[in-house]
Amino acid sequence: MKVGIIGASGYGGLELIRLLHNHPKVEQIELFTSSEEGVVFSHKYSHLMNIVNQPLQKIELDRLAEFDVVFSSAPAGVASTLLPPLIGKGPKLIDLSGDFRLKDLSQYEQWYKKEPAPASAVEQSVYGLTEWNYEAIRQAQLIANPGCYPTAVLLSLLPLLKENAIDASQLIIDAKSGVSGAGNQPSQMTHFSETNENTAIYKLNQHQHIPEIEQALAFFAKEIPPITFSTHLVPMTRGILATSYAPVVEGVTEAHLIDCLKEAYANHPFVRVMQEKDKFGTNQVYGSNYCDLLVKVDPRTNRATIVSVIDNLVKGAAGQAIQNMNVQFGLEEITGLSLVPAFI
Amino acid sequence: MKVGIIGASGYGGLELIRLLHNHPKVEQIELFTSSEEGVVFSHKYSHLMNIVNQPLQKIELDRLAEFDVVFSSAPAGVASTLLPPLIGKGPKLIDLSGDFRLKDLSQYEQWYKKEPAPASAVEQSVYGLTEWNYEAIRQAQLIANPGCYPTAVLLSLLPLLKENAIDASQLIIDAKSGVSGAGNQPSQMTHFSETNENTAIYKLNQHQHIPEIEQALAFFAKEIPPITFSTHLVPMTRGILATSYAPVVEGVTEAHLIDCLKEAYANHPFVRVMQEKDKFGTNQVYGSNYCDLLVKVDPRTNRATIVSVIDNLVKGAAGQAIQNMNVQFGLEEITGLSLVPAFI
Amino acid sequence: MKVGIIGASGYGGLELIRLLHNHPKVEQIELFTSSEEGVVFSHKYSHLMNIVNQPLQKIELDRLAEFDVVFSSAPAGVASTLLPPLIGKGPKLIDLSGDFRLKDLSQYEQWYKKEPAPASAVEQSVYGLTEWNYEAIRQAQLIANPGCYPTAVLLSLLPLLKENAIDASQLIIDAKSGVSGAGNQPSQMTHFSETNENTAIYKLNQHQHIPEIEQALAFFAKEIPPITFSTHLVPMTRGILATSYAPVVEGVTEAHLIDCLKEAYANHPFVRVMQEKDKFGTNQVYGSNYCDLLVKVDPRTNRATIVSVIDNLVKGAAGQAIQNMNVQFGLEEITGLSLVPAFI
Amino acid sequence: MKVGIIGASGYGGLELIRLLHNHPKVEQIELFTSSEEGVVFSHKYSHLMNIVNQPLQKIELDRLAEFDVVFSSAPAGVASTLLPPLIGKGPKLIDLSGDFRLKDLSQYEQWYKKEPAPASAVEQSVYGLTEWNYEAIRQAQLIANPGCYPTAVLLSLLPLLKENAIDASQLIIDAKSGVSGAGNQPSQMTHFSETNENTAIYKLNQHQHIPEIEQALAFFAKEIPPITFSTHLVPMTRGILATSYAPVVEGVTEAHLIDCLKEAYANHPFVRVMQEKDKFGTNQVYGSNYCDLLVKVDPRTNRATIVSVIDNLVKGAAGQAIQNMNVQFGLEEITGLSLVPAFI
Repeated sequence: MKVGIIGASGYGGLELIRLLHNHPKVEQIELFTSSEEGVVFSHKYSHLMNIVNQPLQKIELDRLAEFDVVFSSAPAGVASTLLPPLIGKGPKLIDLSGDFRLKDLSQYEQWYKKEPAPASAVEQSVYGLTEWNYEAIRQAQLIANPGCYPTAVLLSLLPLLKENAIDASQLIIDAKSGVSGAGNQPSQMTHFSETNENTAIYKLNQHQHIPEIEQALAFFAKEIPPITFSTHLVPMTRGILATSYAPVVEGVTEAHLIDCLKEAYANHPFVRVMQEKDKFGTNQVYGSNYCDLLVKVDPRTNRATIVSVIDNLVKGAAGQAIQNMNVQFGLEEITGLSLVPAFI
Repeated sequence: MKVGIIGASGYGGLELIRLLHNHPKVEQIELFTSSEEGVVFSHKYSHLMNIVNQPLQKIELDRLAEFDVVFSSAPAGVASTLLPPLIGKGPKLIDLSGDFRLKDLSQYEQWYKKEPAPASAVEQSVYGLTEWNYEAIRQAQLIANPGCYPTAVLLSLLPLLKENAIDASQLIIDAKSGVSGAGNQPSQMTHFSETNENTAIYKLNQHQHIPEIEQALAFFAKEIPPITFSTHLVPMTRGILATSYAPVVEGVTEAHLIDCLKEAYANHPFVRVMQEKDKFGTNQVYGSNYCDLLVKVDPRTNRATIVSVIDNLVKGAAGQAIQNMNVQFGLEEITGLSLVPAFI
Repeated sequence: MKVGIIGASGYGGLELIRLLHNHPKVEQIELFTSSEEGVVFSHKYSHLMNIVNQPLQKIELDRLAEFDVVFSSAPAGVASTLLPPLIGKGPKLIDLSGDFRLKDLSQYEQWYKKEPAPASAVEQSVYGLTEWNYEAIRQAQLIANPGCYPTAVLLSLLPLLKENAIDASQLIIDAKSGVSGAGNQPSQMTHFSETNENTAIYKLNQHQHIPEIEQALAFFAKEIPPITFSTHLVPMTRGILATSYAPVVEGVTEAHLIDCLKEAYANHPFVRVMQEKDKFGTNQVYGSNYCDLLVKVDPRTNRATIVSVIDNLVKGAAGQAIQNMNVQFGLEEITGLSLVPAFI
Repeated sequence: MKVGIIGASGYGGLELIRLLHNHPKVEQIELFTSSEEGVVFSHKYSHLMNIVNQPLQKIELDRLAEFDVVFSSAPAGVASTLLPPLIGKGPKLIDLSGDFRLKDLSQYEQWYKKEPAPASAVEQSVYGLTEWNYEAIRQAQLIANPGCYPTAVLLSLLPLLKENAIDASQLIIDAKSGVSGAGNQPSQMTHFSETNENTAIYKLNQHQHIPEIEQALAFFAKEIPPITFSTHLVPMTRGILATSYAPVVEGVTEAHLIDCLKEAYANHPFVRVMQEKDKFGTNQVYGSNYCDLLVKVDPRTNRATIVSVIDNLVKGAAGQAIQNMNVQFGLEEITGLSLVPAFI
């Protein structure tokens, strides 16, 4: 397989390169840019010396059309223009931004404050939550790869909401993320001295992943009232931990919730349902494509606490994108993705 | 004033020393230990060279009775035995552990898995949440200094619950803490290589601060149903951020909630009600005795998100203990505590 | 005393505010800016709410001339223009940048790649290494406050070079710094995701503190050959650890080196000579004005290893600046600076 | 190939599992323990759920003799007893501790404060610095895998010393390491709250890797006088950066030094000689088996600064061990080790 990557300089792009380099079916990776044509990529990112020595190429549709698959890891607002002309021209398309995720274009405008992608492209796009959309992904021309937060949240909540095991009307989701989710552009918000030794809440009630989560809950499970979803920045590079709270529906037990999760993912290698431990954290999936889940019911309150952890750059971005590519090409989901978490 | 400290080797004790050293009314600080008698403290903790050069002294009631105030920052289960014989013997007593906080002794046994303190001592003890218990603290012989999490949570929720502005029946509290809250004893849970680059949930539904929060909510505001309170460990040393969620009571607006908080703390120098910002984090109180509050209502859900940040070792431990000492001795609350946060 | 601060938004400026707020002789602090006139400082830096509520003022010479002391913590290239007209106009002047440190103007141009300050101003300026230049500082109109690295390096090496105890011809200095030394401007170099979990060497043989160290060694001790001085960035906010290596001169023992250091600083409260410990690190001076020193001779090689630690923002910047102000105004050096290190 | 691992619970062991899991020639991995027999490994380390589900097995020579290769990642003092009886019994043996590295047994006793391994076993052991000992490794029964610091130091210095390009009599090596090098045993030295925001020097002139470096320099390049080698702990988990200083020999240029390094490693895929950059750090090799090198000569001093970075758990431990296994079994060196650095 020949793979093209648009926007390789971003962290999603770097992670695609890290993972695809060892993918047994990928023979060739080429990198495309709108602004840094001719730059030798390993001069910019010296960790790729002897690994990616090619220069960045100019984005040209005819060139891109020659690839089997084209990933875009450009920021929001770029793929909406670049990818639609490639639909049906040959390559499978996988976009890591939010440009094709929201079916309601007005929601995109409202939350992203940008022009939406063309309606026809959005309509054709398939939401790439692999474990829940396998068949559609298999046949998709254009995949809207899920956001990092939505991936962590949806994998933990969908089975429970689908089975009506928890009360969606009181659902609260409190998410914590490492800083790499903010991308590679320096800003005061990601300046080391103001981020280190600091845990902060940000974009309170304003995060653009809110409509994405709501849309996917409705699509894969059921319509529920608007959710409360908060995002926090913690001083680490990789990892998301999402803690969700909801009352259990009457008669439902902790054991039932656990079974729900186990059944939902019995045939899905990347989702692991864990036993309770003293500590359940992001380092147990670091660098890997796993999403680990934990659920517990407090007998004092009859509320369930549902916890999920992912590596935001792998299962939350590049890893899931490759998982989707594998599905599109009829490969086993784990092809090239059997990474063992780097616990330390 | 002459000050004695029991359990100075713990992080609460070190922070007491850091703050009391510059307290204008404190003339003398002496350190007591049950296990390290004779050890020169600055040999053990070289950052105190030329600051605290005295040896640790053996704990003797007669000696302790000579002080104006005795702080205990020993771990849970120590002060319950050491302090009661000193009640009424002269010194004001301030305990930083949980030993005298829970009025219901059976709750102490259940959550701490230890023998409770004598009933009479617990009965006499006054809960040292300064902003809410000023008069009782002024006259107290024995102060049960609040836990770090309860301080952050109570200061943010009490005004809103007291005014019936939020619906307590759906209250969810999600707290994030730096690692210093776990104290100075090395363990796998606080081992650098397993704590760095890791955000984890721990003691799910089991944290001993749950009954403390519930008791104080009932005492200072009103009885409410059992709460959901979760604790997370984030890779930083100092700081707690607590995010609480509850529906607003019908007719209540965001402006009303903000007013509620502002009025409650109008005369309290250490609690600041903040405007919304892109980012609201623990570094804005680092090293200081401030508790900063933020509240916001999401019009989509009619739920309030209430956020508070403290330095767990200052307002959450040693700082509040000194604030209480100031009240007991008729000093201004800010005496010796006018520390400017070290934002960086 | 009335204090004016130019460039308060930088980290040196924020630290001046943190420390001066509790200085017993400072009655008033006003903040000046060239670009953010009218901005309420606590809106920009919310950690200063209720502490500094004033707006930033426009820089005007007449206004500045009314202060007892004016600090400039603007970046290199600003004070060289702003301060010279104020010399002799009333206020004592203390500049935290490198603009007045290098007596040889061509060296400034070479290492800073900027226009030097006027020769007459540079000539009048006094290098503010308090422990070594007390008398000159006491009478100075304009103080060139030392750089962070030079402070750590000079305090450890000057006594040994002055006594000819180590062989200067083979001197190697390897310094490690937290990221706050790079200031508050976001850049790829200080972007959290590329700085966290990374130790890096930077500006190899090019650091602008090299000529400053050489000039001060020559001035306070003796001329020596060009030094090797390397700088590394480690993933923490505050702190510098400098490790220096040199052969001991024949006949000199470790005990002699220790005595040298102890004698040099016998009357200087902020420099502490430590016994060897398993671990000697920057956290033992965190947040304080101390410089801690350690020296050890390896009998296998007859080389001395000399280690010093400071908080780069305190002893390496704002703390030493205030120490110099104290000297200029005849106050005790420790006035307002008796901060206990925050070991944790 | 069937692989047995003794001491899998240590960080070297966990990293062996992480890497061997994707090694194309390894069919089976079994884990052995002296103290935790029967423990299901993924219960202890939940990040290995669904990856390593087997229980730890008791160490029995007959069982171990059935494997093609046995790694020991037990702490110093364990393999010295366990491995010698296995020599010649079938499996290739690779020890990650220091037990078989020092040919002079009295040095082992002096630096490790432990009983040395049997002389005959030490004599037969081959030092596993792959790039410098290929032929011996190919035929070795027992490999003493190099220490993390020695790997970083030797790869950077050997070519220059062998070619007499730098003056060994003035060699200074200043190394900085992440905390994972200290292993998985909690201690005050690795306690998060005392390690975070702290850079410290430790084991000054006492590090047990000093004799290992000296022995290898003498063996692969030439005898030189005793070296100065210092070790620092920086607040990150993985990575070593070693900065070495030495005068260049008369007539030698920077270009010559670079050529020296490039020639030495022309056929060695894991050592990369880098161009100078603003910043050269450990994150460019994070998680990979690369060792990156940089050399620069300061025309002011005629001294060379030689910098190397490795991931201490990969090239400094498990990765190099697998590289050696590959050599022993006639595989390409990079088999199973083509990991792309996780720059972020």
